[in-house]
Amino acid sequence: MKVKINNEEKHYRTVWMKESDVCMINQRLLPHRFKVHKCKTYIDTVEAIRNMTVRGAGAIGAAAGYAMCQAVIEAAKLPEEEAVNYVLDAEKRIRDARPTAQNLFYAVERVYNSTINADSLERAVSFAVREAEQNADDDAEACKRIGEYGQWLVADGARVLTHCNAGWLAFVDYGSALSPVYAAKAAGKKVLVYADETRPRLQGANLTAWELLNEGIEHYVIPDNAAGYFMKEGKIRIVIVGADRIAANGDTANKIGTYTKAVLAKENGIPFYVAAPTSTIDINCKTGKDIPIEYRSGDEVHWVSGMDGSGRIRKVRVTPEGSKALNPAFDVTPAELITGIITEKGILFNENKRFNLETLLQA
Amino acid sequence: MKVKINNEEKHYRTVWMKESDVCMINQRLLPHRFKVHKCKTYIDTVEAIRNMTVRGAGAIGAAAGYAMCQAVIEAAKLPEEEAVNYVLDAEKRIRDARPTAQNLFYAVERVYNSTINADSLERAVSFAVREAEQNADDDAEACKRIGEYGQWLVADGARVLTHCNAGWLAFVDYGSALSPVYAAKAAGKKVLVYADETRPRLQGANLTAWELLNEGIEHYVIPDNAAGYFMKEGKIRIVIVGADRIAANGDTANKIGTYTKAVLAKENGIPFYVAAPTSTIDINCKTGKDIPIEYRSGDEVHWVSGMDGSGRIRKVRVTPEGSKALNPAFDVTPAELITGIITEKGILFNENKRFNLETLLQA
Repeated sequence: MKVKINNEEKHYRTVWMKESDVCMINQRLLPHRFKVHKCKTYIDTVEAIRNMTVRGAGAIGAAAGYAMCQAVIEAAKLPEEEAVNYVLDAEKRIRDARPTAQNLFYAVERVYNSTINADSLERAVSFAVREAEQNADDDAEACKRIGEYGQWLVADGARVLTHCNAGWLAFVDYGSALSPVYAAKAAGKKVLVYADETRPRLQGANLTAWELLNEGIEHYVIPDNAAGYFMKEGKIRIVIVGADRIAANGDTANKIGTYTKAVLAKENGIPFYVAAPTSTIDINCKTGKDIPIEYRSGDEVHWVSGMDGSGRIRKVRVTPEGSKALNPAFDVTPAELITGIITEKGILFNENKRFNLETLLQA
Repeated sequence: MKVKINNEEKHYRTVWMKESDVCMINQRLLPHRFKVHKCKTYIDTVEAIRNMTVRGAGAIGAAAGYAMCQAVIEAAKLPEEEAVNYVLDAEKRIRDARPTAQNLFYAVERVYNSTINADSLERAVSFAVREAEQNADDDAEACKRIGEYGQWLVADGARVLTHCNAGWLAFVDYGSALSPVYAAKAAGKKVLVYADETRPRLQGANLTAWELLNEGIEHYVIPDNAAGYFMKEGKIRIVIVGADRIAANGDTANKIGTYTKAVLAKENGIPFYVAAPTSTIDINCKTGKDIPIEYRSGDEVHWVSGMDGSGRIRKVRVTPEGSKALNPAFDVTPAELITGIITEKGILFNENKRFNLETLLQA
């Protein structure tokens, strides 16, 4: 999507490969600085996933696919007897970078599998490159379609609440939850977005607001605490969020606080949609109970990162020394609270408090 | 309550009067620095209420009572024909300092009324001083009793969620929502508190955590987004929050995000209590719809204040330049979501989705 730099607009993807380097927009510096981060080896890319230089379900998936591809390229330079172990070791390390996002496992497996039938390391490299690129392209294409379907839910004059960042920065392009908003705007509709700031890491304040500014979409950043108030006041007419993993029954893991917005939407009779490519669906995961929830360091609660008055990015502590903090990064929204799931294959609506995702995957 | 400074414990109230100065713990510097702020004139005290050097329903009330008393002292030094206008003007200015807290109006009226029948300016001063002190003492006494009643709801091993700061810093002493926790601890019970950090101003992270540390009570600071998760996981067994104003039917205005916790508590079958002295009840306010909601500057969302690595208190910006923010400071929790109201006169339970507050006030 668009990035405005010095009044010039340029098109960017979130993550891409240039020769054997994985390049990505450094999301740790947004919205204050726009900088491209280069990962020379798959280990660099794993570290970038782990430390959230790249974050968001689809973007993690694309980066993981590229990392797997880098590992194959690196392995091809080793003696053949070491190459296989190198790739197997890499596969494990990449999978371990983050525990919750389904797209990560999907991408690693997809690129790894593409190399299995290669009859030479050279061919394995060419298969891996093709598959990793296709994986990224598929993500962008799926997100574009999510927008095309989803925009039918976004009326002219719509007032949309979103949580965290499920815009194009969370994918390769277009985004999931924001793709219907972008498509509605492109179709000439007026849209107002309420963006939850999304503590502790403030992806709404940092990233969603930055995307919406660049796309020229009217928006308000609100404290997470205020979403319920605006729902009750009738200001919010639809909620659209992303997903990190969707279980077979429709239970959805997404950024911490998503469950809260779903409960508030139910209380206030507001439709609550999840937007995600079908690669987010983990059909082997029966219900939300089977989705592991990542606990991140309490320091993300204790310290807030931002830009000071002199333009320097720094952290400030908001809790007293000695207090402990708990920081679960995701929560699970039960299927019964979800009105519909917007995918690249269409919108699936809730039937008797569950979703028939198996049929959707086969479609 | 207790403040530990250099390993020494000292007892403090939040706000007090020393000769004609109003002294208060500077809550803008907590938890990083402990400093007493002195207001030499009633105008200084109004500014301290306005800029939240003192905040919290009861502490605002006590400060407003003292401010009214300062105004009477100042007026007594004027020619008699100017004195009455000076006091009337002061009354208006103090009332205008913050719009939502009932205690502010209650205290101003109480101190003002005490002077009406004085037959000299000198006697007016002595009435005002006595009434302002009594007003502060009544607040402390009411909070102490809230603890005595409320602790029966806090079992040994209890896991309590609280929102914002309704501890002793929000009152003159003891607090409202935290008073039952302190009383339970004093009664030998083990209590664990989950403290919502409470964006945008982070009173939970800054103040509640600091109070609990000083009182030696086990606690976790959690992002506002995580409260729903911990409720669903069965970690939280009771919610106790404070109140800024309670309408005649029990609808309660409190810090933004309180409504959200009440909806989540209902969804998860967890009892949700409001703790407040009866001075918080505005019997002239029929329902929550009649309570004005203060909107504060969007800058409180854009900028987060804390202490940097070198010990300096500073602000960092978390949103992109150009994004707008909305910052309603309070929301209203409907009576039907409230299990009971803990007051200094006892605990009033919900009857048919409303509260019989008039009877309580007459008790």
